[in-house]
Amino acid sequence: MGQVGWKGLCLSLFDYKTEKYVIAKNKKVGILYRVVQLSILAYLVGWVFVVKKGYQDSDTSIQSSVITKLKGVAFTNTSELGERLWDVADYVIPPQGENVFFVMTNLIVTPNQRQDTCPESTGIRDALCSKNRDCPAGEAVIAGNGVKTGRCLKVRSNTNGTCEILAWCPVEKKSKPRFPLLVNAENFTVYIKNSIRFPKFKFSKTNVLNTDDDFYLKTCHYSAQHRYCPIFHLGKLVSWAGNNFQDMASEGGVIGIQIEWDCDLDKPPSECNPHYSFSRLDNKFAEKSISSGYNFRFAKYYRDADAVEYRTLIKAYGIRFDVMVNGKAGKFNIIPTIINVGSGLALMGAGAFFCDVVLLYLMKKSNFYRGKKYEEVKGGHLCLWICAGLLEEVQQGAQRLLLWPLKKTIH
Amino acid sequence: MGQVGWKGLCLSLFDYKTEKYVIAKNKKVGILYRVVQLSILAYLVGWVFVVKKGYQDSDTSIQSSVITKLKGVAFTNTSELGERLWDVADYVIPPQGENVFFVMTNLIVTPNQRQDTCPESTGIRDALCSKNRDCPAGEAVIAGNGVKTGRCLKVRSNTNGTCEILAWCPVEKKSKPRFPLLVNAENFTVYIKNSIRFPKFKFSKTNVLNTDDDFYLKTCHYSAQHRYCPIFHLGKLVSWAGNNFQDMASEGGVIGIQIEWDCDLDKPPSECNPHYSFSRLDNKFAEKSISSGYNFRFAKYYRDADAVEYRTLIKAYGIRFDVMVNGKAGKFNIIPTIINVGSGLALMGAGAFFCDVVLLYLMKKSNFYRGKKYEEVKGGHLCLWICAGLLEEVQQGAQRLLLWPLKKTIH
Amino acid sequence: MGQVGWKGLCLSLFDYKTEKYVIAKNKKVGILYRVVQLSILAYLVGWVFVVKKGYQDSDTSIQSSVITKLKGVAFTNTSELGERLWDVADYVIPPQGENVFFVMTNLIVTPNQRQDTCPESTGIRDALCSKNRDCPAGEAVIAGNGVKTGRCLKVRSNTNGTCEILAWCPVEKKSKPRFPLLVNAENFTVYIKNSIRFPKFKFSKTNVLNTDDDFYLKTCHYSAQHRYCPIFHLGKLVSWAGNNFQDMASEGGVIGIQIEWDCDLDKPPSECNPHYSFSRLDNKFAEKSISSGYNFRFAKYYRDADAVEYRTLIKAYGIRFDVMVNGKAGKFNIIPTIINVGSGLALMGAGAFFCDVVLLYLMKKSNFYRGKKYEEVKGGHLCLWICAGLLEEVQQGAQRLLLWPLKKTIH
Repeated sequence: MGQVGWKGLCLSLFDYKTEKYVIAKNKKVGILYRVVQLSILAYLVGWVFVVKKGYQDSDTSIQSSVITKLKGVAFTNTSELGERLWDVADYVIPPQGENVFFVMTNLIVTPNQRQDTCPESTGIRDALCSKNRDCPAGEAVIAGNGVKTGRCLKVRSNTNGTCEILAWCPVEKKSKPRFPLLVNAENFTVYIKNSIRFPKFKFSKTNVLNTDDDFYLKTCHYSAQHRYCPIFHLGKLVSWAGNNFQDMASEGGVIGIQIEWDCDLDKPPSECNPHYSFSRLDNKFAEKSISSGYNFRFAKYYRDADAVEYRTLIKAYGIRFDVMVNGKAGKFNIIPTIINVGSGLALMGAGAFFCDVVLLYLMKKSNFYRGKKYEEVKGGHLCLWICAGLLEEVQQGAQRLLLWPLKKTIH
Repeated sequence: MGQVGWKGLCLSLFDYKTEKYVIAKNKKVGILYRVVQLSILAYLVGWVFVVKKGYQDSDTSIQSSVITKLKGVAFTNTSELGERLWDVADYVIPPQGENVFFVMTNLIVTPNQRQDTCPESTGIRDALCSKNRDCPAGEAVIAGNGVKTGRCLKVRSNTNGTCEILAWCPVEKKSKPRFPLLVNAENFTVYIKNSIRFPKFKFSKTNVLNTDDDFYLKTCHYSAQHRYCPIFHLGKLVSWAGNNFQDMASEGGVIGIQIEWDCDLDKPPSECNPHYSFSRLDNKFAEKSISSGYNFRFAKYYRDADAVEYRTLIKAYGIRFDVMVNGKAGKFNIIPTIINVGSGLALMGAGAFFCDVVLLYLMKKSNFYRGKKYEEVKGGHLCLWICAGLLEEVQQGAQRLLLWPLKKTIH
Repeated sequence: MGQVGWKGLCLSLFDYKTEKYVIAKNKKVGILYRVVQLSILAYLVGWVFVVKKGYQDSDTSIQSSVITKLKGVAFTNTSELGERLWDVADYVIPPQGENVFFVMTNLIVTPNQRQDTCPESTGIRDALCSKNRDCPAGEAVIAGNGVKTGRCLKVRSNTNGTCEILAWCPVEKKSKPRFPLLVNAENFTVYIKNSIRFPKFKFSKTNVLNTDDDFYLKTCHYSAQHRYCPIFHLGKLVSWAGNNFQDMASEGGVIGIQIEWDCDLDKPPSECNPHYSFSRLDNKFAEKSISSGYNFRFAKYYRDADAVEYRTLIKAYGIRFDVMVNGKAGKFNIIPTIINVGSGLALMGAGAFFCDVVLLYLMKKSNFYRGKKYEEVKGGHLCLWICAGLLEEVQQGAQRLLLWPLKKTIH
């Protein structure tokens, strides 16, 4: 190209090219298209933007710290333990007050266990024996408490006995108090403090109401009326999860305390509040056999005057509370907005495509519209060019007159 | 359709249909459109692709394992405990070295507690009494340490006394050493080992510098100069979180150690490094009343020569460190790329729409452009066809000559 | 506008405007365009919808609760501890059965430690001394066990000695049994119960097979054949993670048990099953020096007849198991579907743009096509209007005849 060519190209860069439309005065398709356009607009505005907040960038990787603190004492009077008072240091395991805490509500205590030999518990199938050969020395009892010594212990010369084992003796009795020992645990309260942070938006908050009223925070209990009070009554926690505390206290169980933060950070921070929900996490009914409820064993170790170690084994039943925090924060961001608007607009194109199909293939005069929409250009056919050449001289004059302003130059 | 018709349809499938554009030689709108195009392109390239890495698929569900190990000893000399040395087994709770660990810095020790009766602590409102009837037997003291026995204990015959309770006696004194006991905890160090894995990309890494220099890893301390050293000085951890260790040591608190992995897996793995940040998680100022700081109670249980249990109750103040790991890995993936490019292109359409509005409704000659852009097709109007019919014969000859190459056939 | 104008505008709202296309009978570009269209369609259907399930909304913020319970006993016979049986209460730390549990497999026991003075361990560089001045009183031994008293303890008058320290004495010996003590820990089993919930879809499930066959759940062991049995053999867990239990038992380590839930909630809930994978989380080889394996120290505290506290320090080596749960649930949702379809369609536009470039700039007759595609409209040029004005009268008649049905009116 010459000087002029480049200049022309340069200038033509700033020509505005706009798509040419054919107006089909077909009211049916026209109304159809408007309906489609309005539907898409309604979907975009109503669903994507208002309901789903599609204009927001969201952060779901919440950072959370939970501090829990229990309060309450319980008094028990059993033949085994005598009169005994239980306080926080006795019944909360572990004591640190993390997001998972266990409140002991029932227990089997086996005191004064020592490393010794004794008969295995009678309920264990692998330890049943009739003669010493049934108890090979050194073999661990399956699902039992110790290692067989090789002797079969029998009351009189019955055929049924149990193997003698080397274990922490005496072994645990397999019976648990029918009624939960720490019935009063129902009245304990727990203070749950949850600090959260959305790292993407550098936004922090805690679940403790920001109030100057100290007395309120010391005495309030969470309920439907006091949604932002962080002190929970254990019995109510369990009932909100759809269970009865007394039932759970006997066998144990796991209660999930879900704290959900759904924050719209385009609003003021005071409107970002936690929502609590409670559910039972261990399935009460499904698998009775393998492990209904929740319990675990731990021991307190002592030494006697001769420095020989002995222990108190405790099988603790109780309720484990899992505080689970999850959250989502949204804040206006241009990228999801653009992606959603862009997708909406692209959808308009899809709508137009759909209407085109109706117009061009389903309408009565579809042939006519097709002809109008598609302008055929037979480039490169020889006959055309011959014809065109022949006619050119004739056209030349008329065309200049008639069509020049339209600039439909063939070449 | 006949044989020819099907063949034609088949062939026409491979015709290329391209949108017809009208060139409006309007420089204003032309430049406007180019500016809009460039803006969208700049946004797409600069923001979506370079800054936000919109061409990457991201994985935010990081799997993380944290091992922590403290080192350090502290010596204390108090009237209560005498000369005493504290080592890791004494002051770290729990001992396992998980992602949450607590360093005891101050404590109230109440030794030799036994199940017994004794007066309740004087500070508790519910236990104040003037006569025995104020202390109904069997009632637990609210926010107290035990269960009332029914007696009101008074020094002389004063009107003011406290209820006698059944509890672990003597009850804890409500005074805490003014100065933190384990002041030297400031100099303890903690080794934090964090192994992470992005399951979507099957990518694993640890925060420990991959070096052969054993000596470096044994002696380094994390600082601005040593960003990949995993050993942290507790005092500095606290100061980086904007607090003073001595202040925190007295009342306790929670420090969050955030480890952030922001990995671009299109780069070599060695460039995927953790970024540490430190913050105080319990709000120091907001709620003084209910639970400022961080503390919890635990007990060590003993048995005396007669096998009677007694315990040492410890109210431990200290700093809990929560190691919180979050991360995001991105790797090139065609789907987000296409979504972003597609949305960008759709945006071009929106830009064209905007320029169309300017051209067709806001320009002086908008009427003229409107006429050019929209080609009206009045199908189905009877009068048109009558007129057309009348004129057809006349048109026939001229049209063939002039317009045939343009192929603007009406039918 | 007059009455008629408004009516016209109103009616024209329901005119359907469809883009005008130019049919370029160029088979090359036509085929190219069809290929591009098919590729995009294949990508959209095959990749986005079938493989990536782009029609689903997904929830990755899984809520999970893990209960673990170990079974098994081990018998050891060492000169130090004598014959001893280890049961769950002895070797599991912490005892509560949370998602992280530690099985002790080897240990260094230092019994009868008391607060006293004794020589520091000989292996610690900072405690080596030749004279008292090398041991400044009150200074803590770096990486040691106590505080220097100011005396240098020497066997005979050698030059080499170690500082006397105030510490829990005697200090721990730095030797660990070459062979793991609790070799039999390999045969322990762990029952892992995992309850999950996808809050967005309110969907809950547990990993325990929903069966009535109690016996199966009591006796099964997880393996390739029993994928939904929740009881794991520790030795196999370690071997699945690519390690040897005996090797790990000696030095300790961390095994990650990943439970992955990838649920398609458009299918029945019974098809949402956990997938287990096992990996070693502490790097065995990389950093030998600083802390290979996994161990920690804890103490059991006792009181003697005079109520003086003494303790047994235990350095526990063992395997920590981290149960890590992550998951993703997908369910059909219209928004991601629309975003993906919209993006796909926008991509079609990109394909058309690409083909346009080929047609208009790379084909031989590109000039010709360019002329057809772009209809030039020179508005506002004076000369044009002069010419146009001169020619208008002549055109008027002919145009009416020829072009009126085409409605190509210039004004």
